Amino acid sequence: MNVNNKHYRTIWAAEDGDAIELIDQRWLPHRFETERLTKPSEIVTAISEMHIRGAGAIGAAAGFGMYLAVATSDDSTVDQNVQRAATALKASRPTAVNLEWAVDRLLRALEKGNTQSEKRRIALQEAQRIADEDAEACRRIGEHGLEIIRIISDEKKNGCVHILTHCNAGWLAFVDYGTATAPIYAAHDAGIEVHVWVDETRPRNQGARLTAWELEQHGVPHTIIADNTGGHLMQNGKVDLVMVGTDRTSVTGFVTNKIGTYLKALAAKDNDIPFYVALPSSSMDWASRGAMEDAPIEERPGDEVKYAQGLIDGEIRSVLLTPKNSVAVNYAFDVTPPRLITALITERGVMQPNEEAILECYPEQRESGQKND
Amino acid sequence: MNVNNKHYRTIWAAEDGDAIELIDQRWLPHRFETERLTKPSEIVTAISEMHIRGAGAIGAAAGFGMYLAVATSDDSTVDQNVQRAATALKASRPTAVNLEWAVDRLLRALEKGNTQSEKRRIALQEAQRIADEDAEACRRIGEHGLEIIRIISDEKKNGCVHILTHCNAGWLAFVDYGTATAPIYAAHDAGIEVHVWVDETRPRNQGARLTAWELEQHGVPHTIIADNTGGHLMQNGKVDLVMVGTDRTSVTGFVTNKIGTYLKALAAKDNDIPFYVALPSSSMDWASRGAMEDAPIEERPGDEVKYAQGLIDGEIRSVLLTPKNSVAVNYAFDVTPPRLITALITERGVMQPNEEAILECYPEQRESGQKND
Repeated sequence: MNVNNKHYRTIWAAEDGDAIELIDQRWLPHRFETERLTKPSEIVTAISEMHIRGAGAIGAAAGFGMYLAVATSDDSTVDQNVQRAATALKASRPTAVNLEWAVDRLLRALEKGNTQSEKRRIALQEAQRIADEDAEACRRIGEHGLEIIRIISDEKKNGCVHILTHCNAGWLAFVDYGTATAPIYAAHDAGIEVHVWVDETRPRNQGARLTAWELEQHGVPHTIIADNTGGHLMQNGKVDLVMVGTDRTSVTGFVTNKIGTYLKALAAKDNDIPFYVALPSSSMDWASRGAMEDAPIEERPGDEVKYAQGLIDGEIRSVLLTPKNSVAVNYAFDVTPPRLITALITERGVMQPNEEAILECYPEQRESGQKND
Repeated sequence: MNVNNKHYRTIWAAEDGDAIELIDQRWLPHRFETERLTKPSEIVTAISEMHIRGAGAIGAAAGFGMYLAVATSDDSTVDQNVQRAATALKASRPTAVNLEWAVDRLLRALEKGNTQSEKRRIALQEAQRIADEDAEACRRIGEHGLEIIRIISDEKKNGCVHILTHCNAGWLAFVDYGTATAPIYAAHDAGIEVHVWVDETRPRNQGARLTAWELEQHGVPHTIIADNTGGHLMQNGKVDLVMVGTDRTSVTGFVTNKIGTYLKALAAKDNDIPFYVALPSSSMDWASRGAMEDAPIEERPGDEVKYAQGLIDGEIRSVLLTPKNSVAVNYAFDVTPPRLITALITERGVMQPNEEAILECYPEQRESGQKND
């Protein structure tokens, strides 16, 4: 997508092939900065400390991190370094399934190479492919989701379609386009009038910081709200549909996404408002046949709740919100059960959130699912 | 309640009778300050700019504000000044019913006085009575609510009772004791093990700032959470009951309370967790027979969403969270329908949230209700 009229992805291989560059999202919306990383350990830090975040973007980062593990090795150290990077990258954040998926994909691809030089070529190609596929999947999600928005726009006789989203499942969370935002961008570009309610998404404010910034860059009308507000808006007819992303969705349709998603899904159900989850199939957990107990929920530092980061006197700093000695807990995700979800939107289309419907769209996964039973 | 081992109410008449003093809640938990006000217009500002907030506390403040209107008048100006103060105080915040209730009570009482001197005595007495009654009502709510907590503690074989609360319906929101917190303090004092999940309550963080501070002062174990977190905790069996306050409850059981209450009520219902609303009858809107469209919902400045206030370098300042030019909206309250509420707890006991049950406990209101039909 465009930043100040220049096209960017969230992460890319440097032209010299010696480094990976990415948008350092910690300083947005106040400062736009990119970062050049040359070691796999720097990618691990960039993921765990959230320089880059979001299901698709950290999947791509993991792929490129594996590439850096190869690129910084020689013939004698490459296998060991690749294994070490694989373990560290998978552990860098526990919830998103894309991390594991991307690392395993690199590991499989690397089996075909013998020398460090061969492996380097393979790793770059495979990591690049993951990034390209992610962007293409998001573009297609946009096309499928656009039709949903178009129908609502038609029902409203071209009246503005009000879409509520939570956290950032925008292009910053993927390689390009985003998931929850892809249909919004597509609709806006197609001339359909849309307006987005942006949940600020405490504690890290990915909505207020990142989604609002993205929408502003693209010229999409939007309004930031406290996370507490969505229910009230839905009760009062001010939301036409909810569109969110996911970090991990089980093949049985249980959606793990940013903490607070479940509350918005309950409110949507209570007010008969459609609730969509947009995801590339790389975020599907094909092995998970169960319900919420299957999803590992990351617990982050309580200080992210106790403090808020923002701009003051031209600097980005944090203020203490709570009594100094208070204890806070910080669960990063929750699980929304399929009974609250209208449909999933993937790169292959719109489908019901249940095993039968999902596997009908992904028949090649029937076997992998059974293997994991 | 105690602050650093000294007993305080949130608001009181100064000993010299020439001023009203109150705890200026804007600087908590970082700084404990009291404020001395001598003009009714200063009380209006203290309410609208939230030096003092919470249903019972602003009711008491309105009573004392009416007293200051009399105290600063002479025989020739008193009636005009009282009318002017009544109008300004009622308009200082639109949602809480206590404001109107307290002002009207002063107006009725003042009809019995003739001279400024008589009216001054009457106004102080009536305002003081409102404050005392509020404290006594909250004390009784604590007694009734204690029994609910005791039953859960018994069911858990004296295991810790985990209570989730939203915003601040603590003693800072009333004259003393609080509503949602009164049963918690009573249970803690009775030796029952309790732990409180404190919703931070964006955008003004009354939970993270005020409820956490209160509980800390009283030694009640508690953990601060982002507003997004309650649903996840309920799904995972970590909440035994929810206890909140209200700024206005219709006689039909519709509860207007801090924005986000509705979302927690939905989650409680979805997970079969009891959801209680604690209130003195001064927060009942006896005239309102309807549903949510009856409650006026205050819309506050969007900057409260765009900025967060906290402690930095020893000062209390605000940081900008969002893109500079983003638009935010800030609805302060929402309405929870009675179908999501287990029971109301008032100074007269525990009752179902419906007209029949409420009027059975308040038979003297049957007439007033009909009058307003």
